[in-house]
Amino acid sequence: MTISGTGTGGLTIAIDGMGGDHGPETTIGGADIAALRHPGVRFVIFGDEAAMRPVLDKFPRVAAISEIVHTDVAISMEELPSQALRRGRKTSSMWLAIDAVKSGRAQVALSAGNTGALMAMAKVILKTMPNVERPALAALWPTASGESVVLDLGATIGPSAFQLVQFAVMGEAFARIITGLEQPTVGLLNIGQEEVKGTEQVKEAAQILRNTGLPLKFHGFVEGDDISKGTTDVVVTDGYTGNIALKTAEGTVRMIVEFLRGALKSSLMSRIGYLFAQGAFKALSRKLDPRTSNGALFLGLNGLVVKSHGGTDAEGFAYAIDVAVDVAAADLVHKIMADLGSLDGLKPVSNRDTAPATPDESEAALS
Amino acid sequence: MTISGTGTGGLTIAIDGMGGDHGPETTIGGADIAALRHPGVRFVIFGDEAAMRPVLDKFPRVAAISEIVHTDVAISMEELPSQALRRGRKTSSMWLAIDAVKSGRAQVALSAGNTGALMAMAKVILKTMPNVERPALAALWPTASGESVVLDLGATIGPSAFQLVQFAVMGEAFARIITGLEQPTVGLLNIGQEEVKGTEQVKEAAQILRNTGLPLKFHGFVEGDDISKGTTDVVVTDGYTGNIALKTAEGTVRMIVEFLRGALKSSLMSRIGYLFAQGAFKALSRKLDPRTSNGALFLGLNGLVVKSHGGTDAEGFAYAIDVAVDVAAADLVHKIMADLGSLDGLKPVSNRDTAPATPDESEAALS
Repeated sequence: MTISGTGTGGLTIAIDGMGGDHGPETTIGGADIAALRHPGVRFVIFGDEAAMRPVLDKFPRVAAISEIVHTDVAISMEELPSQALRRGRKTSSMWLAIDAVKSGRAQVALSAGNTGALMAMAKVILKTMPNVERPALAALWPTASGESVVLDLGATIGPSAFQLVQFAVMGEAFARIITGLEQPTVGLLNIGQEEVKGTEQVKEAAQILRNTGLPLKFHGFVEGDDISKGTTDVVVTDGYTGNIALKTAEGTVRMIVEFLRGALKSSLMSRIGYLFAQGAFKALSRKLDPRTSNGALFLGLNGLVVKSHGGTDAEGFAYAIDVAVDVAAADLVHKIMADLGSLDGLKPVSNRDTAPATPDESEAALS
Repeated sequence: MTISGTGTGGLTIAIDGMGGDHGPETTIGGADIAALRHPGVRFVIFGDEAAMRPVLDKFPRVAAISEIVHTDVAISMEELPSQALRRGRKTSSMWLAIDAVKSGRAQVALSAGNTGALMAMAKVILKTMPNVERPALAALWPTASGESVVLDLGATIGPSAFQLVQFAVMGEAFARIITGLEQPTVGLLNIGQEEVKGTEQVKEAAQILRNTGLPLKFHGFVEGDDISKGTTDVVVTDGYTGNIALKTAEGTVRMIVEFLRGALKSSLMSRIGYLFAQGAFKALSRKLDPRTSNGALFLGLNGLVVKSHGGTDAEGFAYAIDVAVDVAAADLVHKIMADLGSLDGLKPVSNRDTAPATPDESEAALS
């Protein structure tokens, strides 16, 4: 997945040092792992210096390439976005990390903190791009044939048809950069392949993608099971459905892994079998390891913000840093802006409200 | 799951003999397997006698307890519901099977055919119950701790808050009967636990379920991963999201099974391991076998209609017969009607259109 290693020198990543369930141990520990993979990359880490210093002492490699900016305000995982914005505006480690992208001090911000708060702050600080009404959260989804980009995973509830089309254009640009494909295929998530199926928004979005000559390879509708089949390189849906699909899949993986573990412990014979097949099981569990697909990206803002799973460990956080490095090195924001130019001539066909989201609306999104 | 074996004598099941990808081989073959499990149950099978006769000759046990009603009209898997209604009204094997429930000739109808057509016909023939505006498709979903009832899986796109509440009441009644629990817990699928999250419909539905003293155990919001955790016995959602979640989970299971198969074949050691652990793998694959959770039920109509997966085999179809027998033996329609009485005093709080769905609207649903 990673395309970095070249051209990443000179990049600075702003890290919310306090974000996530495990705070500095994870963020600084993750930076230590990632630093080895991305020589030349620098960090600016925002957070409580007293809490971070002992961890930095354990990871001198990170200390050597990082600037530490002290703040004693940290957003908790439970705060509502509106509360976080009131309490943490201009002072919290999360706000400061995003603000570093706006000021040009860093090329990308990364946080494992409260998703709703991160989204709200990112929108307030960075604003949406021209031609984008609402942002989307995009991530790589492991499939039978590799990985697909799926969006929106929870940033925008109830997008209009036109907003879904914007997601398609942004997701396609992200896929081109992160997978290296020249012409990724794009599918619209629905409950059947036929044109008559689905919500009004989805049907309208398909019409636009089919008929307006946008320069992307639109495959048509895809269904839930097409995601893991890898039928298309990009799968577009609304934030409500995308978030539920993602968590349903994660829950399913966890359940099967538990079943498998139970089955292998169920008898002496199966324990012996496990000993022989250990290598295979380890390969399988690497493949199913949610840490390796950590790192979701907010698309549609005037700057790059990557969200790490809150519960991940240092290794998982390092994967999110990989994503941050890749999108920053590729200058994704400007690539997407250029692509969105293709929407210039198009007018929204829907009458839905298309005003930019207010911070409070982010409370409707995932945490 | 099956509560039958007692009290199922005298039941007659109407079978669409031609429905599904494999037609009579599956439907009659499935009836043969199920007949052993449900002594006293009878079938009335609708379809092309010339196609069914050779299969019946292979399964004399089914022939002995079945009435065969000839028709040479069969609905294809590709037909749109509106086409199916035009072409197959009063003549197709699917129509006739549902009509047998209306006339009292059978207590439940079963088809592996085109879902959209089945739903459209069922609505036209059986009509929705008092206090139900839209039907829902409910099925058992395998979880870490057993099975949960999930609905709607694709019957109603864009239900109102009040319609979601109706789904909750119906799903709870179904769960009581099929799982034997006295007070199944009910969760509303959403993208977070907090009250501020989700679509307007979902938030309103939660308000109603929390505050109006309905006699059901409302747990609150659940997320996608709560389904497979078995957090609640019933999970309520709209047909669009439910269908996508179901197919996403099915696709994920299939992908992991493929990964596992590949891993176990990857080396001599792992092949040896497999030989030792075969028993465990067979138990696991039974647990993950989609056939064992075959059989989704249309809830909210004045009669019972069960939908089998179109692609299933005779063994899978027999599981759908189990569901049909269970719900018919328990007289589910009248139990649900009684439960829906608790909605009498409640008024729709939403301004959305709550008129009964027309057949054409079913084209928006899954096939």
